Amino acid sequence: MTTTVGIVGATGAVGQRFVQLLEDHPFFEIGVVTASPSSAGRPYREAAKWRVDTPIPDHVGDLTVRATDPAEIPDDVELLFSSLPSSVAAEVEPPLCEAGYVVSSNSSNERMAEDVPLVIPEINGDHLGILDVQRDERGWDGALIKNPNCSTITMVPTLAGLDGFGIESVHVATLQAVSGAGYSGVTSMEIIDNALPHIGGEEEKMETESRKLLGSFDGGEVALHEMDVSASCNRVATLDGHLENVWADLAEDVTTAEAAEAMRAVPSLDLPSSPDPFITVFDEPDRPQPRLDRTLGDGMGVAAGGIQETPDGVLYNALAHNTIRGAAGASVLNGELLIEQGWL
Amino acid sequence: MTTTVGIVGATGAVGQRFVQLLEDHPFFEIGVVTASPSSAGRPYREAAKWRVDTPIPDHVGDLTVRATDPAEIPDDVELLFSSLPSSVAAEVEPPLCEAGYVVSSNSSNERMAEDVPLVIPEINGDHLGILDVQRDERGWDGALIKNPNCSTITMVPTLAGLDGFGIESVHVATLQAVSGAGYSGVTSMEIIDNALPHIGGEEEKMETESRKLLGSFDGGEVALHEMDVSASCNRVATLDGHLENVWADLAEDVTTAEAAEAMRAVPSLDLPSSPDPFITVFDEPDRPQPRLDRTLGDGMGVAAGGIQETPDGVLYNALAHNTIRGAAGASVLNGELLIEQGWL
Amino acid sequence: MTTTVGIVGATGAVGQRFVQLLEDHPFFEIGVVTASPSSAGRPYREAAKWRVDTPIPDHVGDLTVRATDPAEIPDDVELLFSSLPSSVAAEVEPPLCEAGYVVSSNSSNERMAEDVPLVIPEINGDHLGILDVQRDERGWDGALIKNPNCSTITMVPTLAGLDGFGIESVHVATLQAVSGAGYSGVTSMEIIDNALPHIGGEEEKMETESRKLLGSFDGGEVALHEMDVSASCNRVATLDGHLENVWADLAEDVTTAEAAEAMRAVPSLDLPSSPDPFITVFDEPDRPQPRLDRTLGDGMGVAAGGIQETPDGVLYNALAHNTIRGAAGASVLNGELLIEQGWL
Amino acid sequence: MTTTVGIVGATGAVGQRFVQLLEDHPFFEIGVVTASPSSAGRPYREAAKWRVDTPIPDHVGDLTVRATDPAEIPDDVELLFSSLPSSVAAEVEPPLCEAGYVVSSNSSNERMAEDVPLVIPEINGDHLGILDVQRDERGWDGALIKNPNCSTITMVPTLAGLDGFGIESVHVATLQAVSGAGYSGVTSMEIIDNALPHIGGEEEKMETESRKLLGSFDGGEVALHEMDVSASCNRVATLDGHLENVWADLAEDVTTAEAAEAMRAVPSLDLPSSPDPFITVFDEPDRPQPRLDRTLGDGMGVAAGGIQETPDGVLYNALAHNTIRGAAGASVLNGELLIEQGWL
Repeated sequence: MTTTVGIVGATGAVGQRFVQLLEDHPFFEIGVVTASPSSAGRPYREAAKWRVDTPIPDHVGDLTVRATDPAEIPDDVELLFSSLPSSVAAEVEPPLCEAGYVVSSNSSNERMAEDVPLVIPEINGDHLGILDVQRDERGWDGALIKNPNCSTITMVPTLAGLDGFGIESVHVATLQAVSGAGYSGVTSMEIIDNALPHIGGEEEKMETESRKLLGSFDGGEVALHEMDVSASCNRVATLDGHLENVWADLAEDVTTAEAAEAMRAVPSLDLPSSPDPFITVFDEPDRPQPRLDRTLGDGMGVAAGGIQETPDGVLYNALAHNTIRGAAGASVLNGELLIEQGWL
Repeated sequence: MTTTVGIVGATGAVGQRFVQLLEDHPFFEIGVVTASPSSAGRPYREAAKWRVDTPIPDHVGDLTVRATDPAEIPDDVELLFSSLPSSVAAEVEPPLCEAGYVVSSNSSNERMAEDVPLVIPEINGDHLGILDVQRDERGWDGALIKNPNCSTITMVPTLAGLDGFGIESVHVATLQAVSGAGYSGVTSMEIIDNALPHIGGEEEKMETESRKLLGSFDGGEVALHEMDVSASCNRVATLDGHLENVWADLAEDVTTAEAAEAMRAVPSLDLPSSPDPFITVFDEPDRPQPRLDRTLGDGMGVAAGGIQETPDGVLYNALAHNTIRGAAGASVLNGELLIEQGWL
Repeated sequence: MTTTVGIVGATGAVGQRFVQLLEDHPFFEIGVVTASPSSAGRPYREAAKWRVDTPIPDHVGDLTVRATDPAEIPDDVELLFSSLPSSVAAEVEPPLCEAGYVVSSNSSNERMAEDVPLVIPEINGDHLGILDVQRDERGWDGALIKNPNCSTITMVPTLAGLDGFGIESVHVATLQAVSGAGYSGVTSMEIIDNALPHIGGEEEKMETESRKLLGSFDGGEVALHEMDVSASCNRVATLDGHLENVWADLAEDVTTAEAAEAMRAVPSLDLPSSPDPFITVFDEPDRPQPRLDRTLGDGMGVAAGGIQETPDGVLYNALAHNTIRGAAGASVLNGELLIEQGWL
Repeated sequence: MTTTVGIVGATGAVGQRFVQLLEDHPFFEIGVVTASPSSAGRPYREAAKWRVDTPIPDHVGDLTVRATDPAEIPDDVELLFSSLPSSVAAEVEPPLCEAGYVVSSNSSNERMAEDVPLVIPEINGDHLGILDVQRDERGWDGALIKNPNCSTITMVPTLAGLDGFGIESVHVATLQAVSGAGYSGVTSMEIIDNALPHIGGEEEKMETESRKLLGSFDGGEVALHEMDVSASCNRVATLDGHLENVWADLAEDVTTAEAAEAMRAVPSLDLPSSPDPFITVFDEPDRPQPRLDRTLGDGMGVAAGGIQETPDGVLYNALAHNTIRGAAGASVLNGELLIEQGWL
């Protein structure tokens, strides 16, 4: 029994990743692809400037691109994967939810809304329960679920592992890949022989989303985690894979070995896209590295390494593939969790 | 009145920078260049594989390379600039000092020794007074003075500016240029489409040297600054210019503007290699950047930017040219300070 | 006696280079800067997103940007430097010439027109004589002069040196810098860990422009050089500096030394921007290299090296700075030649 | 029925690729790994600094490294894959062949020896017949077979396709990946924001090896192809994948379509490592590109594109993965051909 799904914003970089990740998926079958009006009416094969490293699946290439409009979505579609600029998403996602579609979205709008679940399935899948509140409040037949920002996803799984020791505060510096800015987001003139010490809005996303993800859900609302998070975000000349230096100040003393063990103990799920192991912890101080380790678990794995004790807790490196685990793959995994929990 | 100087380890990358920086210097004239026995006896022009972006000065190119041995240094030489691997420096520097030479060294050995001044002239030039202690204890006619590691130099000037607000602790993440590892230190296979989250020994240097540099000298010894410093060091694909994200926790509340003002107020010196301004503070959040800003003050300037308030203090970016302000230029500036203070 | 000049398209990348190169110029003073209507009326300082590595000259930063329209150009301006997309240039340059302005243009339109001089001053300055024909035919008080494409300029000076041996045909493969495509022309996703084997329109420019530049002018028209030129153009991950592999098939046998001598013998001119030497020939087989050699002659020099004999002639490498000698600097040098020859 | 094989020089970069490519191979099983005396006696897992992107196969990791000496090779080993510096290979390969081993070698020594087959199986598999001559002349029970240099392999398959039109001469410019120089062959300081116009010895290899590969074997010796080949070799900042611009002057006129068809018609073989299709020809002018196309056929495919007609023939781009099709994979494929033709 497969669920027919649609991809909203299917011609963009993340949209293409959705197409790639959904090929031969055990739960899902692509029934519709939508894009801006300028692409509507054309075969997907022509409308998308395909840049993914595997060929366009034939049956998707042949689909006619539709406008992103509830009236254009076929009736048999139940779930929509969405990745749009946040201002566009803020306009098109609510009508889709109102029309009865469940939307698993990578867009940044409404991630911090109280009645919108922000979910990493291995970490806080129980937060999906917020959907009952959402449907009550918004009167939707559909639903809206979000995954966090790529830089947040890279860090939070390891923090979840450490939270048994009581996280009091986090300092995190990122070395983020250029693909995180979209195909044309960083020019070659900006990044060759250079690094950029600022990514607009990114720091705030890490600081707020991480507290919601690690917050507790009491059936009614999510209480944000009380830790302070301070992020400093940088862009470097890597194609894929966000590397992060994380200082976690902890209430309890921990050894390097205990911290590693706690990260390795974060369980994988029995969902098609959940990697096993979820978190790979390297003993080597110079790992993980973006090019060597970003494809762990087919790009859905999270890596850590270089764990050191500090006076107040631990310092370590974290890594994840920003356009797979950090974007399209995150939304797909959320879709799988929706199926498993019976929300569709 | 010029002082005749020598360059110890003159054929290496930093040695070549010394040759470049000392050309037409108002205080110094190069009288001798030394290197390992395999290069001794050959003209410098042939012994050095010249890679600096200005031509070899003719009179230096014609010098015959000597072995690094007190017996080989001409009598009229008074000051030696040294940059050697620390294990080599630990063997050759003391005999040179014993033989009466003043050695301004970029090598990492003995930087933390109690009777060795570790100096950034604009910050703690008074620490040169330790030389009296050193001469007493070691019975040297010469003297040994050190400049800090390139990653330390990048951060400490801005911290000096902030210390009026009471620095309690520092977290720092670095994005360091490949030249810091020497000409062949980082292979292209390691760094293209990649970043390396570890540089051996670097973190400890930043954590200890910074406390000595900002410590107070009472005429007898240096009391280390009491701040805690925790560093996480990364290598990225830039040629020159170390970029650092610095969190400084402060005893007093400060605004972004006050922090910027305090950094700008760190004075320049009236020495030939001291840049004016010493610290350039950018208002733009995405500056400084390595390629755009590393040549401020002919590579001797320090830059800061992106200052933000945090709950505990400030977060900002710092940048300096690692092979000029962070290595050869640092030793030359220390040499200038030695002259000005009359130690020669 | 300075000439008041204007910069057309002053806010773009090449426009900014014009501003930089014309600061403190012995012949020229900037009297006006123009740009598209959206920038008109704003101070240049605000309208230009300044990315050149020296500061905006104050008096230019204070100029109010004008629309690119003859009615907007002050009367005391005599010479205009232009760098616009060719389709825009094709519309705005002729009215400016008709209105009496002399336009030294880097834009690619009309480079091959029979009555438009295409000039590298050191190579074919006599071609300026075409301007008499141009004024006759077009009825202009002003005049239009072009410099060639950056990839053409890199190769042609060395060919001019070899032409005494009778060039019969040329094969040339280019490794071009990303700046040649404009600030945003090549994305980081396209070029990190990659090379692009195609640059639209570039090959034809090299094949046609080179024959005009080396053609002979009889006072009435230019007879194209009879050599066949076949170009293959590639983009690589360098910031500035086009490197080219050139095979020149020659009528006469030449030795490597004779070829080098012939290139070195191409004379420099006594103009402010003409470098001396014009062509630097390296004996080392691995030179010139973009990063090491692009700033020869302040970016106006041309370099060659790695000369080898082939069965039919010679094979060698050529290099020039594409945004200085290959763009803005080329137009400025043409402006200087116009002054010297008395066309203004 | 599998053949037990050994890897000579197994700890190096190409040696590691051999281990990777031979895992689960239908013909071969690794029975021994050899290296220099300093590694002998240690488990392969420890002796090799493993850098390939798949894990070390367990049974190989557990093998004890042997010295490269006939006395150290177990009796059941029949075929050795070798990749050593040419000077080392020249010393160790002949004794191994004399001792009865068949050596499929990637090392550059003896590639042009008259009694040594230089083979690309899809192109000139019949040249293996030279082994009868070799055994006669050298009195070996074993045999020595070579694959060409990585830059040669990239170009020759496409030339083989075109040779039906009569290749008269070839000009080729290469943009070669840094991995071709070995893991530490190109430093980051050399190649960031740069390109190197020279690779020692590379041009001569392309010029001679290509004529042998396309030469005809009459049962006794190989008559070299009569075409002139002139190569210009450059290093660029790509990790893997040599890109080449090839001008082939042809006796007959051909259209772009005919040239593409002739390349596509070069047949694949029914061997485990032979890709299908062998040559992928792109219609797009900006393909193939190293990062996008180097993994065609699991790195064993050859790509062409951008075919243009020239006055004398055609100009096009060629690409192959230099460390798979151009090195270890080439030797493995030669080993498969040896099996199929019954030389073992």
